[in-house]
Amino acid sequence: MQAEIIFTGNELLLGEVLNTHAQYLGRELSAQGIEVKLHTTVGDNWAMLKKVLQSALNRSSLLIVTGGLGPTDDDLTKETVADLLGLDLVMDGQTLAGLEDIFARRGVTMPKNMKKQALLPRGARIFPNPVGTAPGILLQTGGKTIILLPGPPRELKAVFEGSVKKYLASVAGRGMVMRSKLFKLTGISESQVQDKLRGVQTGENTNISYVAMPGEVHVRVTGRGENEQQAQKLVDDLSVQVSARIGGYVFGVNDEMLEQMVGRLLASRRLTVSVAESCTGGLVAKRLTDVPGSSRYFLGGVVAYSNEVKIKQLGVPREVIARFGAVSDETARLMAEGIRRVTGSALGLGITGIAGPGGGTPEKPVGLVYIALAGDRHTNCRQYRFPGQRDGVRSGAANASLNMLRQFILQVT
Amino acid sequence: MQAEIIFTGNELLLGEVLNTHAQYLGRELSAQGIEVKLHTTVGDNWAMLKKVLQSALNRSSLLIVTGGLGPTDDDLTKETVADLLGLDLVMDGQTLAGLEDIFARRGVTMPKNMKKQALLPRGARIFPNPVGTAPGILLQTGGKTIILLPGPPRELKAVFEGSVKKYLASVAGRGMVMRSKLFKLTGISESQVQDKLRGVQTGENTNISYVAMPGEVHVRVTGRGENEQQAQKLVDDLSVQVSARIGGYVFGVNDEMLEQMVGRLLASRRLTVSVAESCTGGLVAKRLTDVPGSSRYFLGGVVAYSNEVKIKQLGVPREVIARFGAVSDETARLMAEGIRRVTGSALGLGITGIAGPGGGTPEKPVGLVYIALAGDRHTNCRQYRFPGQRDGVRSGAANASLNMLRQFILQVT
Repeated sequence: MQAEIIFTGNELLLGEVLNTHAQYLGRELSAQGIEVKLHTTVGDNWAMLKKVLQSALNRSSLLIVTGGLGPTDDDLTKETVADLLGLDLVMDGQTLAGLEDIFARRGVTMPKNMKKQALLPRGARIFPNPVGTAPGILLQTGGKTIILLPGPPRELKAVFEGSVKKYLASVAGRGMVMRSKLFKLTGISESQVQDKLRGVQTGENTNISYVAMPGEVHVRVTGRGENEQQAQKLVDDLSVQVSARIGGYVFGVNDEMLEQMVGRLLASRRLTVSVAESCTGGLVAKRLTDVPGSSRYFLGGVVAYSNEVKIKQLGVPREVIARFGAVSDETARLMAEGIRRVTGSALGLGITGIAGPGGGTPEKPVGLVYIALAGDRHTNCRQYRFPGQRDGVRSGAANASLNMLRQFILQVT
Repeated sequence: MQAEIIFTGNELLLGEVLNTHAQYLGRELSAQGIEVKLHTTVGDNWAMLKKVLQSALNRSSLLIVTGGLGPTDDDLTKETVADLLGLDLVMDGQTLAGLEDIFARRGVTMPKNMKKQALLPRGARIFPNPVGTAPGILLQTGGKTIILLPGPPRELKAVFEGSVKKYLASVAGRGMVMRSKLFKLTGISESQVQDKLRGVQTGENTNISYVAMPGEVHVRVTGRGENEQQAQKLVDDLSVQVSARIGGYVFGVNDEMLEQMVGRLLASRRLTVSVAESCTGGLVAKRLTDVPGSSRYFLGGVVAYSNEVKIKQLGVPREVIARFGAVSDETARLMAEGIRRVTGSALGLGITGIAGPGGGTPEKPVGLVYIALAGDRHTNCRQYRFPGQRDGVRSGAANASLNMLRQFILQVT
């Protein structure tokens, strides 16, 4: 089943509003095995909308249209679709009664223009809107399916979750189902990832895609099959090959957030952690405390941006910084051990590096970061070279730090 | 001048990534008086992209295409556009030299596939990319203008701000021109803002729009006119009224980042700052250090998540916490004074509050935050109530802290 999504509204074209429907519907339809070929955003313009709808109907079997179902004059989606398909608009008694009921319960008179929302193209089926006044609408004609959804994000989601999802599952079942696995990598650039995966063969129903963002590269392995099992098997088989080549850079899989995983591990093992940060400047502490309930395992941190703070607050000897530099294996280890001692936590992280854009030298270039983890027996330290700009280096270092913590807990405890 | 924007990338169709370009470009083009007729999102699919480009060229005089300029195999925008226009791709020596220079400075060998980014359609003009490897590209043919922009948001913005904006201003100009002013507010909800602005009259060519995000509400005042002066006057007049009603909640205007403004102020006055954070958990330090060169004025911080860290690292007396609570005016002041003393900075910030979802009581509900600022003569402390969830409270508290710092420096120094 091939689909297109059409978003309507001048506010989207003008950039007044961020189009979050595109992500939400794109993800939901893909999960159902429905292939989305195109997104189109069109203003509140009758002629343009009609043209866009006509082209989409020629190409695709399923059309989802968002917005323009409200009571005001610039809401014209229903009217345009009805006109295109040669259908009358008829007053739907049940919908009208529902609208009147909503206003009666609010204790206010229903504005006249509200009635417009109970006008439906002849033959339409309703998807109820539990949180607003404009229902979703289903039209089927000549092998094509058109679904109209209200524009406000809260209403769109409520209608979609409440009934459209189930409807799509019932009709989409015969198409190909899609499954995917997301690998999140750090410490490597997008093109280096692609170099490493060059030999991996993808077939007609499998795909590997890449997205680069500051401090991370996402690799998504996708499989399509007649059913879930078949699609999943393709994903699993391909993932084994992908993992073998880039596994060392992976810090997370699918949508699980590293800070949440780390938090669960720390809490379940009754371990505590503290963080001494230089180049990440508070980012690792911030991410650990993004998680509700993190006070159970996160004791605190020191942002040791200046050398004096490293010396006074963390007890790093002045001579070590003078001899090896603030960005060194030695300093990172002493920072990790210092914060652990100072807070009394079971584990201590120490992070020091050169985030850039300034401060780099040929020996210690921008992107060089040392991350140390101190436990009760010994301290590990690893050297990284993160590609990209300041935000990429900092995000990469935070990802690597949290991942080091995760791996340590899994291995040692 | 009528324009269309085409976004490329499977990740957008599949909903893996939120399309923020649509809002950014929509807003920027509108501001130039360029009418955007359509947005289209197409996957990494050569045939489909070609069809979409062809239709767009038939309809519009300006085409902006995002994404697909990178080094990997699924980056095919340049190739498709060149094919459609019947142009060769030729290696651009200057762009190639620039790429080689970037890798030389990083001290790594340039991956082979990088070269692809220096291939340009014959006759193309370059819009330099100051933060990445793929430049923007300008093509003009048969009265049509095509602009290709790199997909990563940071790069797209840098290329657009750096040169595309100026180029468009030189060719656009005859339509209605739009100007706007953005007020960023914290410590107030979207519906409260709307209530406060209910009496403000907008006309046919003026508009007030709202966007709520965690910890912030954005209010945009827009004016349209025959020329810049006319549009700007409408914005200015309306802004006076808006300011009078909500000015107390404003922490920033337009796109200036609070941490950058604060950084400039601190640097120009040779002041230093340090931060003691409880509920924000490192977020304020992280934001201060997001700014390149922040080591000139930011000395460091303590993330005092546990009471023991507040006592040992910041010298907050145990009795104060026992008597007034960790979330109190008294503790916030002592945290600010403690971090100032410990690091020797000119100014110290202390932040303590209840971010939620747990930990709230009827007397001290979720969202209650105390922010104190210590200088050499005295310490100010202010109580806030931030609406929303954990991330909203934390972002709101960080915005308010940085704003308090900004106002203090402006008033006192």
